[in-house]
Order: sequence, then structure tokens, then C-alpha cells
Amino acid sequence: MTPLLSNYISGTWQDGTGAGTPLLDPVLGTELARVDATGLDLEAGFAFARNEGGAALRALTYAQRAALLAAAVKVLQANRDAYYEIATANSGTVKNDTAVDVDGGIFTLSTYAKLGETLGERRHMQDGEAARLGKDPLFQSQHVQVPTRGVALFINAFNFPSWGLWEKAAPALLSGVPVIVKPATATAWLTQRMVKDVVDAGIFPPGALSIVCGSSAGLMDALQPFDVMSFTGSAETAAVIRSHPAITQRSVRVNIEADSLNSAVLLPDAAPGTEAFELLIKEVAREITVKSGQKCTAIRRIFVPEAAYSATAAALSARLAKTTVGNPRNESVRMGALVNREQLSSVRQGIAHLQHQTETLFDGASVALLDADATVACCVGPTLLGTRDAQGSDSADRVHDTEVFGPVATLLPYRDAAHALALVRRGQGSLVTSLYGSDPAALAAMALELADSHGRVHVISPDVAQLHTGHGNVMPQSLHGGPGRAGGGEELGGLRALGFYHRRCAVQASTSVLQAM
Amino acid sequence: MTPLLSNYISGTWQDGTGAGTPLLDPVLGTELARVDATGLDLEAGFAFARNEGGAALRALTYAQRAALLAAAVKVLQANRDAYYEIATANSGTVKNDTAVDVDGGIFTLSTYAKLGETLGERRHMQDGEAARLGKDPLFQSQHVQVPTRGVALFINAFNFPSWGLWEKAAPALLSGVPVIVKPATATAWLTQRMVKDVVDAGIFPPGALSIVCGSSAGLMDALQPFDVMSFTGSAETAAVIRSHPAITQRSVRVNIEADSLNSAVLLPDAAPGTEAFELLIKEVAREITVKSGQKCTAIRRIFVPEAAYSATAAALSARLAKTTVGNPRNESVRMGALVNREQLSSVRQGIAHLQHQTETLFDGASVALLDADATVACCVGPTLLGTRDAQGSDSADRVHDTEVFGPVATLLPYRDAAHALALVRRGQGSLVTSLYGSDPAALAAMALELADSHGRVHVISPDVAQLHTGHGNVMPQSLHGGPGRAGGGEELGGLRALGFYHRRCAVQASTSVLQAM
Repeated sequence: MTPLLSNYISGTWQDGTGAGTPLLDPVLGTELARVDATGLDLEAGFAFARNEGGAALRALTYAQRAALLAAAVKVLQANRDAYYEIATANSGTVKNDTAVDVDGGIFTLSTYAKLGETLGERRHMQDGEAARLGKDPLFQSQHVQVPTRGVALFINAFNFPSWGLWEKAAPALLSGVPVIVKPATATAWLTQRMVKDVVDAGIFPPGALSIVCGSSAGLMDALQPFDVMSFTGSAETAAVIRSHPAITQRSVRVNIEADSLNSAVLLPDAAPGTEAFELLIKEVAREITVKSGQKCTAIRRIFVPEAAYSATAAALSARLAKTTVGNPRNESVRMGALVNREQLSSVRQGIAHLQHQTETLFDGASVALLDADATVACCVGPTLLGTRDAQGSDSADRVHDTEVFGPVATLLPYRDAAHALALVRRGQGSLVTSLYGSDPAALAAMALELADSHGRVHVISPDVAQLHTGHGNVMPQSLHGGPGRAGGGEELGGLRALGFYHRRCAVQASTSVLQAM
Repeated sequence: MTPLLSNYISGTWQDGTGAGTPLLDPVLGTELARVDATGLDLEAGFAFARNEGGAALRALTYAQRAALLAAAVKVLQANRDAYYEIATANSGTVKNDTAVDVDGGIFTLSTYAKLGETLGERRHMQDGEAARLGKDPLFQSQHVQVPTRGVALFINAFNFPSWGLWEKAAPALLSGVPVIVKPATATAWLTQRMVKDVVDAGIFPPGALSIVCGSSAGLMDALQPFDVMSFTGSAETAAVIRSHPAITQRSVRVNIEADSLNSAVLLPDAAPGTEAFELLIKEVAREITVKSGQKCTAIRRIFVPEAAYSATAAALSARLAKTTVGNPRNESVRMGALVNREQLSSVRQGIAHLQHQTETLFDGASVALLDADATVACCVGPTLLGTRDAQGSDSADRVHDTEVFGPVATLLPYRDAAHALALVRRGQGSLVTSLYGSDPAALAAMALELADSHGRVHVISPDVAQLHTGHGNVMPQSLHGGPGRAGGGEELGGLRALGFYHRRCAVQASTSVLQAM
């Protein structure tokens, strides 16, 4: 029997009483560990976090909590090798892809440790300046932000067991709000190990950080009005979560990150051969293959002027042809596995679904695997589809509506800038679009046009070719989230992230009272 | 037949094709008008607002839109007498109470006209400063706020047909987002007349302001991902709205203001006889009677030290005894009617429900009506209940859980400050609590303790006795909303209100691109 990963709740490690669900190696097919949450007293665990963890965290200042984050960073850095091993085994990722998750998570946590220091020795934040409520300045309104007296429940996705935990936990803990994380079962091991390392180091007060592995049954039922919850995953599950009485009746604040049909747009004046064109080829090829395309920010739709279609198809296909796919333990492999057989099957079905409305420019199904048994390993080569002409881009509704969560993207030619904007918007709200060009005015104008339907617009021009942070990399300084289909959530964005864990209140009082705060 | 109020949608006035629902005079019982929305093409109307109205509004700058708000203020001021007549007939309110709604609405609109001017000739807002994304300052992240490309649907409550419209429409229109308002049927006349006056004056571009009177059937179905919707009303209806696919599946942003068990707290050191005590008596008596207690911000629970219970009961009862109730057309009447027979019956049932756990300190049922037929008029006298001792305050769960939407409040004695805080929090999230005392430090400390469970804390100390703006008055400068049972929404708060109608986006780009924005 493989080890059963323990849950940490009510300040104690507790094993589930069921048989457990196995976690597998997606390349070798072997069982690695099991998770189970059967029999846990969730009500008691949530109450412990809310009362003990919350009170202890709120008793600290922002700077003190920031110091705890910094201490957690040190613990995680010390155990980094173990995390890489777990990721290789459980996520099937090559080292560069593991870094996006593991080091990305630690970097985000350390960024919030630094941001938190700047908030100093206080326990609430001022929100703007005091405003007069009449002619006499003695009676004024001062808005404040105070931490909510509840827990933050995270129901996380399989693709970022490390980053997905820390990008949410860092602002929550810095805000003084205890965290309960439920990692996706398929890759729960890394999340559980990181929580275990931090808990064992005794950094946070009891109840500040809890983890439940296995089924999410009962978690939403345990939520109370001042709790908040954050979900990353499919639009389908998001709708179920939003319909739960915790949200509809108890007004639990919810943040959703769901499907996203992210775009890359080559601007009309960036013809093949220009530096901007080359930058697009490089970035798109990287985005298709990093983490085998299992990134919510990955480029799914590539928009280029009609005249650039063939050149783009050829250049991208040439790059993708160089991608070696297979066992991440083999150092010559550049792209590892999908997370499990279900995802492999889902990606294959998704590609077939899109192929009804596209031509196949580069076929990942034909790619031979390195050091991996194709009947066992959840590996698939990168695939590039295309709609050939601008009319095809209009009629390919599946391409605008279906997120295939793997190394797949579709090339879509457009007629002019207005047509490109209309096509991008058919994604109905996305996390990120990247723009490629060299005319600052044209780039700025298109960025503003797309700002309302995106959480982020990433502009790649030749002057920042070596500096830009990547279409798909989520920087803690910038907002992460998107409207509509992307779920309508907002995460990160530096200190903006703290807003989700705080309550805003207007205190209307005499100047002497406001000064005493 | 009474007149059928027309709907304004798709830029034209359209009558419903059904028989209509009658609007009544709550004092005389006579029919005043009818509303009907049968047969309207809502899809087309929403599309017209979204495409025509939205594009035209977004083409204007904030300052230009602010000027339109100012022009609307002038139109409304010119027709003020007509609004007072409608309110007297349809809401049964005395002049002072009509002013809270009519003049409060116009004041809020004019406040946003002034705030909008300060935003100048721009079409989007910067959100914070640019942040470096690496050591080299050439590549940065700049957050912007841009208007959402959708409509703002308001499903409003019966108690504020004027203010409820303008406090939401002002920030929406200023943001560049077209408005579709569905007033509560019982008092739809005033909303419809105000919209008609503004539409007839030709101030806003076609599609910017629409109104649907009558049933709300089909309104939510017409919402698309970039639309937003705002609801004020019961927690029950709020749960239905939150469960609608527009919210759960299409991520339509929603703002809810629902039930609220607002509190007034006399601080431990503010004994009977002190100025703070007198201020509480005056404010609570006013809050119970203004608009016959039909204000979402009205005081429902009054917390006083145990030793002050009898004196408070006596002083409040003496004040309430002076309240004349009846026909608002009689100038000696201070309190008019509830909105209709359903509300009258609901308030009577609510009082009976609370009386199971309280004693009746002042009985509104015994108050004789002035100039009104008790078998017809929806009038009821003010009622004060009480729990006698601190233990009673703990065990009276109905008092902490039931919002009786009429002139009713309950006096609840507490043991000490910690007990008072615990009791206030049993409201599970409220719009506003007011504090009465003279020690700035004690008032500031309690305000901060209650900030997480309230949208607003209103502090009344002797130095601002003549200056403070009132527990129940919602000032446009301050946040209006509350967590938990209060719905979790946020409105007003000066320019903060614009956030709901904007989308935040991080633009990551080279400095030259950011400067071109």
C-alpha cells in the first residue's frame, strides 16, 4: 500500500478513515500515494481555523505577518529538491515546467512578504483620505479596510499544486485570514508536502493553515457569512459552487477563475520577417508547450493578418517539430506529460472537436515519445490548428468557445484591426491577451480596447524582447483573473489582492474619533 | 381605467400588452395607475442599450458624462413638485420622508456630477502607479479601469423609488455604462415619471437609460457576461437571483443589498442624563419613525448597558407617544403609511413574532390614526420592544434574525462592551451601526471592532451633535452595503462606486507603450 497523506485540520494531523484515492505517476502509471478525507469533522476544523487561527493572525500586525511569510519562504527553499522530485513523479513535468510551479509559488510568497513589510505595524488599512460630510470639517467619513473574521477556503486546480496554493495563501495570511486548502486530488502530494513542511516548522499560529486532501464533499457546507472562498477549475464546477447556499444565501464572497481562451495578436503592421513577428513565433511556441499547455493563461488562439497566415503556420510548425516529448527524467525531453489519462483523453477529444472546423498545421499525434510507453504515459505532442482564411475565423465557433487544456492552439487570420478585436472578444472574457508589434500608439490603443474583456494585456515590442516577463507567467505585481467565461475573479495585483480578504467600512465620526483610530 | 405607465426600451416608449398591475394609494386605497411589461422584446432592448447606449456613452469623457448628470439634476429639480405629489399618493409619505427619497436622490446625482468633473477629459482611469516587473524599469505593469461593455440592470426596492434609482444610475452613467431599471411595482410611478422627464429632455444618448415596469420575468435571462446587475430587496429574492444562470454560468457581476438588523449602541460610560444618552434617544426615535421604518438602514436593535434599560425605555416611549400617525396630507401628521396591505400585514406578523421573546415597551397598535380609515389605510404606530435583561438579549434569537420592515425596534440590555459587540455581531452582517458616547478612544476602538461586519459605522458624540448626518441617511461619500445577511454588496463611497461598472486590467508593456495610453 502506498502512503496515505494526512490532513491537517483543527491543529492536528488526521488520517481519513476510507480506503483513499490513489495518486499516480502520469508517465510510468505507478501509484505514488493516497488521499482521503473521510470522517473528518469539518465543522470543527473550520471553527478552529476561524476562531483560533483568525484571532491569532489578527492579533499580529501586517509587518509581523509578513515576517511569517518570509520564514515560510525559507522553509520552502530548504526543501526545494523534494518538491522537484514530487513534481516529476506526480505531475510528469520537466524541470523548467516544475520551476514555473514550485519557484513561481515561492517567488510569489516572497513578494508578498516584502509588500507586507511596507504596511508596517498596523492591524487595519486606511482606504483613501477622510471626506467631509458637510461644510464643517469636524464630521467626516474615513474608509478603512479590516480583515474579515472568517476563513479562506481554496479549492484548487491540478496544474499548479504549489503556485496555486501560495498565490492565494500569501495575500490571505498577510491579511490576517486563516487558510484551508483543498488541492486537486490528482496532484495533491506537492501541496500537502509544502503545507506539512511549513506546519512542522511551527511558523504560523495553530489554525492559520489547514489542508484537506481528497473529496471536497462538505467543504462548502461548512462556510459561514464572513468566510471567503476561491475556486480555480472548470466553468462547470464553478457554476455548481456559485449555486451553493453558502454563496446564494449566506453571501460568502467568492472568487472564480475558470475557462479562458487566451489570445496572441500580431498587429497589422508586423509582417513576417519583422522582429515583432519573430517574437510572436517564439512566445506562442513556448506557450503551447510549457507545462504541456496545462496553464490557464496559455495561448489558445493566435490572430495574424491574413497575409501572414502561411508564414506563421510554417514558422510555428518548424518550432513545434523540435519539441521532444516524453519522460521528464530524460534530460533531452522538453515536454513531459499531461496530468492523467482523463486529461489525455479529454485533450484528444478536444482536438478532434476543433478539427471539424480547422485544418491541422502540425499534428501532435504523430510525435514519437522519448523514454515513455505510449500505452501508459499521458503524453501528447504539440498540435497547431488553423482556419486558413478570415471567414473561417468567423465561422469556427468551437475555436472561440472550447478550451482544450493541453499543448494545442489555433491560428486564425483576420482582415483588419477591428476584425481582430471582434474575434478576440468572442472568447467572452479571458485572462490574458498578448500583442506583438512595434508601434507604441497602435499597441496602446489595442491594449485599451481589450482591457475590459481581459484581466491582463501583455505587450511584446522589440524594445522589451529581452525584458518582458512572458505571456503566460503570472507576475504577483499584476492582476490575475478575467471577466465572463474566465470567471470574473481578481487575484494578485500586488496589494490589491488583500482587498478580497478585507472588509471595507466607512467610519463617519468627529475628527477626534477618527484620529483615535 | 387608470393610466397605464409606459416602458422605455430600445429607445422607444412601449406599452405592455397585458391588463396591467394596479398601483394603489396606501392611505386612501384608491387605484392610481397600472404597470405592465407583457410582450416587450427584452433581448432587443438589452442589445440596443448594450450596443447603441454603451457605445455612445463610452465615446464621451468622464467630464462630458458628468455634465449630462448635471443636466438631469436640473430637469429633476424643475419637476420636484410633481414628484412630491406622486410620493404622497403612491408611497403615503409625509413631506419630510418624501424629501429623504426625492431630494436624497437628486443630491446623490448632483454629487456624482461634481465628482465626475474632477475625472476630466479622459475615457479610462489609471489604477495606481506603474510597477516594475524586473530590475530594468523599461518593462512595467500599469493597471487601468475601463468601463464594462454591457448594461447595468437594477431591480429596485419599493421604499426608495427615487434615491434607489439615482444612487445606482449616477455612478453607472458616469462610468459610461447604460442603465435598465426595473422599479418595484408598488411604487413604480415615481421612478417611471423621473425617467420620463429625463428621457423627454433628451439629455442622454438613445439607449443610455431604459425602464421596464411590472414583472421582472425575463430580465435576468437577457443578461450577458459583461453586464452587471444590482438588486435591493429581500434575502429570499437575492438567493433566487444569485442562483440564476446569468450569475452562476455567465459570471455577470452582481451587487446585492438584502436584510439588515442595524444597531445603535450606547457606550458603557454614557449613562442616562449624559449628552450622549440624549443623542441616542433622539436618533433612535427618529430612525424608528422616518419613512415608517421602511428604510434598510433603520435601527432595529438598540443596545444599552443593563443599568440604562429602564431609563432608555421610558425616554424612547415618551418620544414615540408624541408621533402622530395617519394621512400624510394632514400637516399635523408626522408618520404616514406603510407601502401596502401586504407590508402592513407582514409588519404586524413580524411584531407578533418578536413579542414571543420580548416585552412591549410601547405599543404602536394602540395609536389612533389621524384622518385615515384604519380598515383601509396601511398605517401602524411605532412600536418599541425590549428584552428586559442581558440574558434575554442573548436568548432572543428572533430579534437578531428577523428584520421587521416597519416602525419597530427592540431595546436590548448588555453586560459589558464585549457582550455588546457579541450581540451586535449576531446580526450576521449589517449596513450600519451607530455608536453613542463621548470618549474618542472608546468610540474609535468599538468602531474598528465592528468595521468587518458593517458597511458603515456612524459615531455620534456631543461635539458633532449638530453636525452629524444621521444614522440612517446614506451619504454618497460613504460606502453603502454590508457583508453577510446584508448581502455583501458595496455601493456609493464616492468614486469607489465606479469600480463596479469598470473592469480592472493590468497592461504589461514597455514604457513607450504605457506612455501612449
